[in-house]
Amino acid sequence: MKKIKAGVVGATGYAGAEICRLLFGHPQAELSAVSSVSFEGMALSQVYPAYYQVQDMVCGTQDEVVEKSDVVFAALPHGLSQELAAQCHQAGKVFIDMGADFRLADEAAYQEWYGGTYTDKALHEEAVYGLPEFFREEIKGKRLIANPGCYTTAVPLALAPALEKGLIEDRGIVCDCKSGVTGAGRKPTQGNHYPELNESFTAYKVVGHRHTPEIEQTLSRLAKEDVRVTFVPHLLPINRGILATCYARLKPGVTQSQIWEAYHERYDREFFLRLLPQGQVANVKNVRYTNYCDISLFMDARTSTFISISAIDNMGKGAAGQAIQNMNLSFGLEETAGLLLLPPAF
Amino acid sequence: MKKIKAGVVGATGYAGAEICRLLFGHPQAELSAVSSVSFEGMALSQVYPAYYQVQDMVCGTQDEVVEKSDVVFAALPHGLSQELAAQCHQAGKVFIDMGADFRLADEAAYQEWYGGTYTDKALHEEAVYGLPEFFREEIKGKRLIANPGCYTTAVPLALAPALEKGLIEDRGIVCDCKSGVTGAGRKPTQGNHYPELNESFTAYKVVGHRHTPEIEQTLSRLAKEDVRVTFVPHLLPINRGILATCYARLKPGVTQSQIWEAYHERYDREFFLRLLPQGQVANVKNVRYTNYCDISLFMDARTSTFISISAIDNMGKGAAGQAIQNMNLSFGLEETAGLLLLPPAF
Amino acid sequence: MKKIKAGVVGATGYAGAEICRLLFGHPQAELSAVSSVSFEGMALSQVYPAYYQVQDMVCGTQDEVVEKSDVVFAALPHGLSQELAAQCHQAGKVFIDMGADFRLADEAAYQEWYGGTYTDKALHEEAVYGLPEFFREEIKGKRLIANPGCYTTAVPLALAPALEKGLIEDRGIVCDCKSGVTGAGRKPTQGNHYPELNESFTAYKVVGHRHTPEIEQTLSRLAKEDVRVTFVPHLLPINRGILATCYARLKPGVTQSQIWEAYHERYDREFFLRLLPQGQVANVKNVRYTNYCDISLFMDARTSTFISISAIDNMGKGAAGQAIQNMNLSFGLEETAGLLLLPPAF
Amino acid sequence: MKKIKAGVVGATGYAGAEICRLLFGHPQAELSAVSSVSFEGMALSQVYPAYYQVQDMVCGTQDEVVEKSDVVFAALPHGLSQELAAQCHQAGKVFIDMGADFRLADEAAYQEWYGGTYTDKALHEEAVYGLPEFFREEIKGKRLIANPGCYTTAVPLALAPALEKGLIEDRGIVCDCKSGVTGAGRKPTQGNHYPELNESFTAYKVVGHRHTPEIEQTLSRLAKEDVRVTFVPHLLPINRGILATCYARLKPGVTQSQIWEAYHERYDREFFLRLLPQGQVANVKNVRYTNYCDISLFMDARTSTFISISAIDNMGKGAAGQAIQNMNLSFGLEETAGLLLLPPAF
Repeated sequence: MKKIKAGVVGATGYAGAEICRLLFGHPQAELSAVSSVSFEGMALSQVYPAYYQVQDMVCGTQDEVVEKSDVVFAALPHGLSQELAAQCHQAGKVFIDMGADFRLADEAAYQEWYGGTYTDKALHEEAVYGLPEFFREEIKGKRLIANPGCYTTAVPLALAPALEKGLIEDRGIVCDCKSGVTGAGRKPTQGNHYPELNESFTAYKVVGHRHTPEIEQTLSRLAKEDVRVTFVPHLLPINRGILATCYARLKPGVTQSQIWEAYHERYDREFFLRLLPQGQVANVKNVRYTNYCDISLFMDARTSTFISISAIDNMGKGAAGQAIQNMNLSFGLEETAGLLLLPPAF
Repeated sequence: MKKIKAGVVGATGYAGAEICRLLFGHPQAELSAVSSVSFEGMALSQVYPAYYQVQDMVCGTQDEVVEKSDVVFAALPHGLSQELAAQCHQAGKVFIDMGADFRLADEAAYQEWYGGTYTDKALHEEAVYGLPEFFREEIKGKRLIANPGCYTTAVPLALAPALEKGLIEDRGIVCDCKSGVTGAGRKPTQGNHYPELNESFTAYKVVGHRHTPEIEQTLSRLAKEDVRVTFVPHLLPINRGILATCYARLKPGVTQSQIWEAYHERYDREFFLRLLPQGQVANVKNVRYTNYCDISLFMDARTSTFISISAIDNMGKGAAGQAIQNMNLSFGLEETAGLLLLPPAF
Repeated sequence: MKKIKAGVVGATGYAGAEICRLLFGHPQAELSAVSSVSFEGMALSQVYPAYYQVQDMVCGTQDEVVEKSDVVFAALPHGLSQELAAQCHQAGKVFIDMGADFRLADEAAYQEWYGGTYTDKALHEEAVYGLPEFFREEIKGKRLIANPGCYTTAVPLALAPALEKGLIEDRGIVCDCKSGVTGAGRKPTQGNHYPELNESFTAYKVVGHRHTPEIEQTLSRLAKEDVRVTFVPHLLPINRGILATCYARLKPGVTQSQIWEAYHERYDREFFLRLLPQGQVANVKNVRYTNYCDISLFMDARTSTFISISAIDNMGKGAAGQAIQNMNLSFGLEETAGLLLLPPAF
Repeated sequence: MKKIKAGVVGATGYAGAEICRLLFGHPQAELSAVSSVSFEGMALSQVYPAYYQVQDMVCGTQDEVVEKSDVVFAALPHGLSQELAAQCHQAGKVFIDMGADFRLADEAAYQEWYGGTYTDKALHEEAVYGLPEFFREEIKGKRLIANPGCYTTAVPLALAPALEKGLIEDRGIVCDCKSGVTGAGRKPTQGNHYPELNESFTAYKVVGHRHTPEIEQTLSRLAKEDVRVTFVPHLLPINRGILATCYARLKPGVTQSQIWEAYHERYDREFFLRLLPQGQVANVKNVRYTNYCDISLFMDARTSTFISISAIDNMGKGAAGQAIQNMNLSFGLEETAGLLLLPPAF
């Protein structure tokens, strides 16, 4: 069978580079073309010497990527994907957007949090939100997929079953999240300068991180009611991983076994979701370099609080891994193709 | 003036070693004797080569420490301090306990969370809880001081003014805390083995960490009502520091300026508490090796949630620094003596 | 085609666990059985939660591994492999030893550096030294392979072509090596306790590391003269990787182009050896989780010194990766089978 | 007694900020003024929030620093110190240069390695090289001091006694050095971006680092013969510290006791040099935040190689600490004033 030709626009950013890495091991797809505004004409392996002699593809233009590919992954700053999406749409290519341009159904919310508008509303209506565990059937065969953000994957996976079953309140939810540094991208900043980040730990964008409306959109849709969350992200001095510690008020009378049952019922059949045995806590270390999401559940009876802790690799299930999963669904491949990886133990 | 003679029982543990380090720079106190069960007969600098030729004092017995000291700092596993406290009391020595044996006023709570009893109730009644910013007047001149734990310092400092002024609810408080590894002590474990902790992040003792009743005791006493918290500690792959991200429900109508006013009124005169300018976030990095506590305040109007984030060095304000501060209060010294340090920028 | 059945004795140590991980992705071999003295009866994923639901094989006995496998990888403390090797030999199984028992041709050297004897000399004569880039033809089809150590892979790969061609002196070689922590194994020690190793860097076993005679054996064999090295290992506060910075005296008149020519001639056809472009320096980061060895060459004309810097993953080319490579050679598979991996960029 | 007024030009760089930190604890000197081209008008604590409310001095101009200070520390890019030195000289201020402009006695060497010229030769003749352990008497009372670089402190301290006594050859010396990241400065770069440096290790400027002629100048002067070194620096993923592993050929017949005697004789009276007991190895961790240099000695009898390993804090003895030591010597203070610190154990 001929392999699917997969191109990456913005291939030299972290998300783009990780898509290239996962495609290298994909049995039914192959990297067809890459582009980069900053590194046009340079090989991927000149930007990332880890790829030397293994993946030396040279960065071309965005148009070349569209031309040479069956599917285009776009890892662009928000606001730049809409035009490319239209171009791919016209050319009959599948478009998977790593950015936020197609994630919010509500244009007003996009305007409020991102400051842009939807230039082609018809196109936005075609877009599907690529969180396969919740919207699998919608994604299958679709040609325009908005790949969720990292926090916006970790938090809904932690909370959805409890909300779907009405076991927790839709108000008073606290999402205390911690992310590895790769989430902030490849561009050096003072805050991510090694001597300053090393041995540090802090929160950032304490009120007003742009993932807030996206988290609430997913949870509200699943809960079929208006869910609100307080979301505070923190920056970990590690490379990869998001730990989402989510707190919610239990509805009166809800028991521990109801909670566990809801999660087992919903997640046991999900290949990439690993519901941990009682007492074990999700750890970002255990999902690194893969598409798994580990979930651990706790109840604080003293305060009637439900605590769900999920862990993903922000570059895996939180970005590139999920994008491959969406590609697989779009093309009718095995959903796990190219993602059957054993996370390294150390 | 003759220097105060300060002895450390359990000097080779991390808290003990840090007390020795701070005493080295104290203008009115000096290390008089150290003991260690595991390293008796060895110099501190054989256990910590960083101290070589600078602090080479040899570990003797507990009795020698008591004999040679005006004040005894005890860094012992819980349960072992009560007898030593009695011995110091009889010998007329000031006793500062780094452990939990004298922290809880309620013996039933101690039994429930630590599994021991109070062998000498009269002695426990003499004990004062050594959180100077709240209980300064009680500590002055006292001879038996229970030095608070690390989380139990960071959380109350983050929340007290809002509770004291009745600006937040006493229910629904979430304390999502993250600690550096030194908090787990010097003894190697699988979880703290470098290859396993490095690039990892997880929560631990998700429900049921022993600092819970101590946090609630302090907050309830200050709020003059029964305060309950959900407390989840996490382990950071860094050496020093605690970041406490605390969430509380604002009482109806409470404004941002009321919150700020309450904190300024309460903390502006506190030397070691640094209320950060609006928008800045506390970072564990900025208080390392010192006794400072940085506090940053936020309001999530969308969800009526108050967020207070505090940062301390778990070995500084969370242990050894606060112990020195308590010694200073006990002996009538300047409260800042030996603690006038500029945190390293990197 | 039926997959090769591969068993791992000592599977819960780091080298063993990494062999299991690589086998998970091997197209022509599969994990058949694992054993562990410390964790018998427990699943691999109970020891390494990263493997949960992906590789949950339960640890059995050594005998079970031998019985169920075509090839047995032994990751045992030195001295324990000889008996197992004999058992495998009799049972007609291929035996790949991760330890030192079969590495030294000279029993006297083994006695001097390891303190043991060779219990079955005939068996030792059958053993081949598994450094494929130098001894490929000998390894093919062999049933008893001594997998080299980590330093003993990195140093010969850095120096061999220059020695083989007689371009550098066989005396005065300095091998300043730096290793990640996983090289010291899974057992927690004071030195590898996170707070003590973090932000530290030092040398260890400055004179007398056991890899010295093994390095000299390989280099002498390749140079066809008696080569001596000064070898000093250091411990890096990172998980994976060895950087070997090797210094040698250039023979009079040797030019830079002679050096480069020798390396290109020798290594250009080697899949796992990546000779870096002039000016680039090998970095342990670029080979992590894979079997590659990066090599970079420099000449200090001022001092007539040749400097070769190689980088491997101590758990990859320095242990498990090379073991898989040897298995492939022994069974007549593609040498790269299961090792066609793109190193992660971050 | 009136305190010495100490000003820092370039105070917001790492070396400048560390001088400010050490001055904070100095009993006889105080920070009088700071300047910064990039942050003029901002407080030090806006650049380094660790200093908030403790050291909030505002950055002014270079001229203000000169005017308000008895001693001016200049932490400037090379080439910019000469004019400022002249200005200070004329104004009768002591000038301590953290850069390279006055370090090399030989202008031709400066031209070759730095590409500049000496604009005022008379001024250069007044400059003294500020390595107190070797040139103490020259430094006392001097008004123009070239503070050595970090590598150029660590290597000579490791090798000098053996060279002074003629115990090692002046050819064939290898200096394999490893530095923490702060040595590369505060400006973010791709190489020091957290995700790229974390879990990495490599060498840089393998042949041709500018500290080479400075190291050779010091060693040649002490050995009274022309000493050549091969110097290769590496970058450690830690914040502070340099470990210099130095290899030299022993002269025929030299014994281990001769070596030890030479070092004891030379260093036992040096407060900041800690010659470690036999068998112990210097570790960067043990000197962090202080002015100490740890030295450990080894002999490889098999190869007649002497190995000396020294450890300093690149920002302490390698920069700011040594600058304070030089100030003390210049002003006739106790050499240890402000530097009597116990290195933290963790």
